[in-house]
Amino acid sequence: MKKWAIIVAGGSGLRMGQPLPKQFLMLADRPLLSYTIDAFFQAYPDIHMVLVLPPDFMEMGEQLIQAGYTGKNIQLAQGGATRFDSVKNGLARTDPSNAIVFVHDGVRCLVTAALIRRCYEKTVETGAVVPAIAANDSIRLRSLAADSAGVNSTAVLNRDRVLLVQTPQTFYAEWLHEAFMLPYQEQFTDEATVVEQMGRSISIVEGEETNIKITRPIDLLIAERYLQQRS
Amino acid sequence: MKKWAIIVAGGSGLRMGQPLPKQFLMLADRPLLSYTIDAFFQAYPDIHMVLVLPPDFMEMGEQLIQAGYTGKNIQLAQGGATRFDSVKNGLARTDPSNAIVFVHDGVRCLVTAALIRRCYEKTVETGAVVPAIAANDSIRLRSLAADSAGVNSTAVLNRDRVLLVQTPQTFYAEWLHEAFMLPYQEQFTDEATVVEQMGRSISIVEGEETNIKITRPIDLLIAERYLQQRS
Repeated sequence: MKKWAIIVAGGSGLRMGQPLPKQFLMLADRPLLSYTIDAFFQAYPDIHMVLVLPPDFMEMGEQLIQAGYTGKNIQLAQGGATRFDSVKNGLARTDPSNAIVFVHDGVRCLVTAALIRRCYEKTVETGAVVPAIAANDSIRLRSLAADSAGVNSTAVLNRDRVLLVQTPQTFYAEWLHEAFMLPYQEQFTDEATVVEQMGRSISIVEGEETNIKITRPIDLLIAERYLQQRS
Repeated sequence: MKKWAIIVAGGSGLRMGQPLPKQFLMLADRPLLSYTIDAFFQAYPDIHMVLVLPPDFMEMGEQLIQAGYTGKNIQLAQGGATRFDSVKNGLARTDPSNAIVFVHDGVRCLVTAALIRRCYEKTVETGAVVPAIAANDSIRLRSLAADSAGVNSTAVLNRDRVLLVQTPQTFYAEWLHEAFMLPYQEQFTDEATVVEQMGRSISIVEGEETNIKITRPIDLLIAERYLQQRS
């Protein structure tokens, strides 16, 4: 089946305290985003890619492509106000027929080709897959209603049941296109939630502890350490 | 109120692939456990401490105390087969009258005096406190029953409701003593769960992102980076 990867890097990353959005920050000797892109081409050299970037950084994206990915199938799309909008913009560039679409956080730059292939293979079977890892900590669930003293009560969850969800979230392209016709809802924090809304079941594959999201300055340092361990 | 800290370091830390249990591994220039101990004495110089250690490492614990903590109120207790047993052994050394007890993971060595004080102050008010932080990832809850195809289904959780629980878990000493008279149950993965079983409510204070549990080799490197950032 044809493979599409929508790399969502539409945020401006203000939490990093840097003038550049985090997806363009340097990790070792090159932009973080280039590691993400490489992992997908390593998994599937013939993959079609859509990079979703902040409107002000489209040119920087063009430069990144020209510097390292000429001849590769990469298109750009503009990020929107929410993640849902950004994915929708990326999705508009894809062709849903007989295809599988990965949606991946641009700042999860340590994703491996092995995980990408694992997601693909499971999706061929089941249609909708997210990678996830078990939680190491005890987990409590906050009730939404506060008690009379204004305190939210919590309940412990069996930690064997709790999964921390990563990306690439991977789907039959037609399911994803169909789901993204829905009007935006606040609980659509990831794509699986949108697809699930259409009555589809989500399968899980084992994620990777190192598949972290770079959001804080310390995460860049952690990512550097992980890279050193790999080489 | 009198303050007791039970530092639970009864594990032998085989996941680290090292001959020493992880609580004795070096972080920068000294054993990881000494950072943990220091944080509690920094928060409350007059605190009474019980170090729960693996049976084979009691002597190493004695040496650690003699090298850096003579004149401090530190006792040793022997770890048990489960965390519940280890805490129970530590608790046996404490005096429950008019006291507050912290139970802390020895390998959460980056805990700050500020967090310890925050836990104490809230416990004075409410009797049972855990520090917790919000989850950054989307969370799914696996159902315990597999479907006919042997696949466990999952459901998405509102991530604003999910809290990752840390330590020190902090309690009125009498509540904790009373709770630890219960027979062991498998779901007692932390102390709050035990106390809750007695019908007590658990309060939450804001934890710290850096209050990580050192369980894998990479965590030591991450902890080093955090330390560098602090100094």
